[in-house]
Amino acid sequence: MKTLRDVLFDEFHKLPVQEKGAYMKDGGRLFHVLYAQQFNRASLDELGTLATNIRFIAKSEKGMRFLQDLLPHKRAMLYFTQPSTRTFLSFFAACQILGIRIGEVRDRSVSSELKGESQEDSVRTFSSYFDLIIMRSEIGGLAERMAWLLSNTDRPVPIINAGSGKDQHPTQSLLDIYTLQRSFEKRGGIDGKKIVFVGDLARGRTVRSLAQLLTNYQDVEQVFVAPPELQIGEDIRLMLEAAGVTFHVTSDFAAVIPEADAIYMTRIQDEWDQVKGESARINTSSFCFGLEQLKHLRGDAVLLHPFPRRNEIDPAVDRDPRAVYWRQMRNGMWIRSALIASLCNVVDEIWNYSG
Amino acid sequence: MKTLRDVLFDEFHKLPVQEKGAYMKDGGRLFHVLYAQQFNRASLDELGTLATNIRFIAKSEKGMRFLQDLLPHKRAMLYFTQPSTRTFLSFFAACQILGIRIGEVRDRSVSSELKGESQEDSVRTFSSYFDLIIMRSEIGGLAERMAWLLSNTDRPVPIINAGSGKDQHPTQSLLDIYTLQRSFEKRGGIDGKKIVFVGDLARGRTVRSLAQLLTNYQDVEQVFVAPPELQIGEDIRLMLEAAGVTFHVTSDFAAVIPEADAIYMTRIQDEWDQVKGESARINTSSFCFGLEQLKHLRGDAVLLHPFPRRNEIDPAVDRDPRAVYWRQMRNGMWIRSALIASLCNVVDEIWNYSG
Amino acid sequence: MKTLRDVLFDEFHKLPVQEKGAYMKDGGRLFHVLYAQQFNRASLDELGTLATNIRFIAKSEKGMRFLQDLLPHKRAMLYFTQPSTRTFLSFFAACQILGIRIGEVRDRSVSSELKGESQEDSVRTFSSYFDLIIMRSEIGGLAERMAWLLSNTDRPVPIINAGSGKDQHPTQSLLDIYTLQRSFEKRGGIDGKKIVFVGDLARGRTVRSLAQLLTNYQDVEQVFVAPPELQIGEDIRLMLEAAGVTFHVTSDFAAVIPEADAIYMTRIQDEWDQVKGESARINTSSFCFGLEQLKHLRGDAVLLHPFPRRNEIDPAVDRDPRAVYWRQMRNGMWIRSALIASLCNVVDEIWNYSG
Repeated sequence: MKTLRDVLFDEFHKLPVQEKGAYMKDGGRLFHVLYAQQFNRASLDELGTLATNIRFIAKSEKGMRFLQDLLPHKRAMLYFTQPSTRTFLSFFAACQILGIRIGEVRDRSVSSELKGESQEDSVRTFSSYFDLIIMRSEIGGLAERMAWLLSNTDRPVPIINAGSGKDQHPTQSLLDIYTLQRSFEKRGGIDGKKIVFVGDLARGRTVRSLAQLLTNYQDVEQVFVAPPELQIGEDIRLMLEAAGVTFHVTSDFAAVIPEADAIYMTRIQDEWDQVKGESARINTSSFCFGLEQLKHLRGDAVLLHPFPRRNEIDPAVDRDPRAVYWRQMRNGMWIRSALIASLCNVVDEIWNYSG
Repeated sequence: MKTLRDVLFDEFHKLPVQEKGAYMKDGGRLFHVLYAQQFNRASLDELGTLATNIRFIAKSEKGMRFLQDLLPHKRAMLYFTQPSTRTFLSFFAACQILGIRIGEVRDRSVSSELKGESQEDSVRTFSSYFDLIIMRSEIGGLAERMAWLLSNTDRPVPIINAGSGKDQHPTQSLLDIYTLQRSFEKRGGIDGKKIVFVGDLARGRTVRSLAQLLTNYQDVEQVFVAPPELQIGEDIRLMLEAAGVTFHVTSDFAAVIPEADAIYMTRIQDEWDQVKGESARINTSSFCFGLEQLKHLRGDAVLLHPFPRRNEIDPAVDRDPRAVYWRQMRNGMWIRSALIASLCNVVDEIWNYSG
Repeated sequence: MKTLRDVLFDEFHKLPVQEKGAYMKDGGRLFHVLYAQQFNRASLDELGTLATNIRFIAKSEKGMRFLQDLLPHKRAMLYFTQPSTRTFLSFFAACQILGIRIGEVRDRSVSSELKGESQEDSVRTFSSYFDLIIMRSEIGGLAERMAWLLSNTDRPVPIINAGSGKDQHPTQSLLDIYTLQRSFEKRGGIDGKKIVFVGDLARGRTVRSLAQLLTNYQDVEQVFVAPPELQIGEDIRLMLEAAGVTFHVTSDFAAVIPEADAIYMTRIQDEWDQVKGESARINTSSFCFGLEQLKHLRGDAVLLHPFPRRNEIDPAVDRDPRAVYWRQMRNGMWIRSALIASLCNVVDEIWNYSG
């Protein structure tokens, strides 16, 4: 049977060369995690099951000690030059859960980039001292460029893209899928559900990646709710059309709430404003979720948010059981643990663990 | 017999509701360390004995390996948004001694607070990925507010207050008490001693907390030596009166030195100046300790300082055996190890250790 | 037979007192690593062999687990107030390889130096909580001053100088020697080779330290290639003359390339400019190495660079097998592991390891 590594490898090879950015070494046994498109339905299912398995093992002290003895001989570099709390800390915690030792570079003012070093040389330096590089950058395509660079050296190490520019944030969409899998566990899974995206859909890379991953599921309907200036991009619409997915674009949030199986709220991403303050001029007050909206939400629907949040969701909503965004956040730690365990070849040990 | 956890729990419940800020879960088995007032004499004695025990175990390699195998399955977040060296590093070292894995957030410029996230959401995020939060903030009452917040979620984790605003710094006063316990070990303990506080008593939270904790001891006399503008607050005076403690307020340092059992020096805390430079205008030259003052100090007295120091103590005094402030600093690591071991329920393992 | 520790101890004691800066405790069993001059040929050879041993052990998971179980009971402070990537990360990785737990202080804005604390008090604080201090500073002589300070306290801990001002960077020269040892392994070692230094020789402390260490070898010829303003200092020339070493000073790089056994390229160190921009006015275009220069390099010669690089070496050269600077970088991790293992007395365990 195919392992998760095999599936990732195959999917990666199906990508057109210009999207691939990096080739495989060692007969495909080494790979980078760069795009959401590398994951198909089978690998998403397997990754989710693995995450759940790790989550249950971690509940006992004995289980935690087992997990931490899996990869103490590995070292990971967290290279995060873009501000981040959740992605950073959940990768950090995932590494700790698996016993991986961590180094980090977050602040360029203490590094040699100050002395005129290129990012290529910086990343190659990390690969000299670490076994895995997890990187986040405000520069689109940087993770791919570095994966390509490393694959052409004597010491390639896997790169995990933890967010690059506005284009991709694959592990965020993996945790979103995992949260949907768990939320619809008793309702037949993600197939056939109506997923509603709300907020800054033009610039939120989490929505873009998740919309793509959802095309792996049957009969999922996607609804994009935003003011016109912040609507989902033409490229995603064309991708959905090509995939034969039913989707709608609207600015009428109230009309959509009662039909939704899942509502995915997002923040206005004003750090990407071309002109300072341009998104502050857009009226986004009708794209928020409070106690009033909660009244119209179905009893078995769920509310997600990738965080950080501002005023899109009233904290008064937090205690409602349909608000799953805090669980979603913690899911990030489990799915990232599963992903790293898979990259580092300790999946069998986890399946074989008996508490 | 009551354990340290039981005592802390009981003491906490005796506080008036408005001072408590957080309630206990799981029948009192989970708690936060927020105020010096949570500790009574019995818990101070037990904590000191536990710290000494850990200190002796740590002397051998075998002992260190034993300690580090106590809590490798736990992860602690050190959330320090206020500059700190000693408190941070001694908590850091205490976690390492017990095998706890550490994450840290110190610089908000790399976190999502930049993107408009509330501190409540930040702390709740930490609780998603970590088992213990140790926090220091320049905002008074913040640790309590966060303890209250977490106690009302599905995933409460203990909070240790590592300094909040000008009001409280409970673990500093624990290490001060531990240093006094050790210093007076052969002189019948802290009871009956004369303790002299010198310097910026108005704004030094370490003095405020220690003055309160000393009310747990019999016949301790407290003397507050400062220029009038920096004298100890009215609230502390009222507290001492209510507790029936003998205390004096003076600006004549020289007169007090020969009678002191312990002198607790402090730095001018000009970071709290309302108007820049206001404390620089106060003449503090007669509130310093040098070789001249050392001549008048009793042979069995001790000199403490919470550090950092400026010119309050001449480094030439450091080599005198009565200068115990470097030992006091290292005591911080041991008492914090004891506190965390107690919170994480591994006290019995430590008592039962046989080298 | 003398151990590496014995040799380091002896060499250190041969230094004139004013160069020593710190004395030994415990019959010489404790020491600091402050100067390249502490190492003689025997200790360089032994250190290199130990590094190679560690490197081979680390190739297997079993070996890595063995190494990481050597020093889990030790804690190291990395006190780096000068920007650094490679030195910091390779020390960091070396500590992780040996299982040492790490604390770090890099940014003074989160430390108590903000509150007016002296560097002496800061370093003494680190010694209270850690077992080893690895420090890098832009201040010349600081590591020696701190070693002296600690050696006069009740809790001396070893200090490793990871770069101080313009004067010394001993572990960099150790990794350079190790790289030369490996490069000339099949050519009879370093003896009799011609080593060419190129670039900013006036201010590059790596060149200064390496030039001194090379005097331990027989018949090594040293060539210094630089524009006149950036030539090697008078002090190094006098040192080489006194040691009877053949050396040349020139600005004609092209003439030297075909005769070189090793070319050591360096970057213009403009962070030391007295007047901003002064080194930018120097024409350094003929002190770069590209594909054209590669044509003239001997087949068995090697090209080194301490990194970071700017334009001194064209990245197109990287794939040539004679470009050993990426291996040199990784050697830093191995030689530092060997040095720390030696300081912490676990060398015998490493020699006795059988995979």
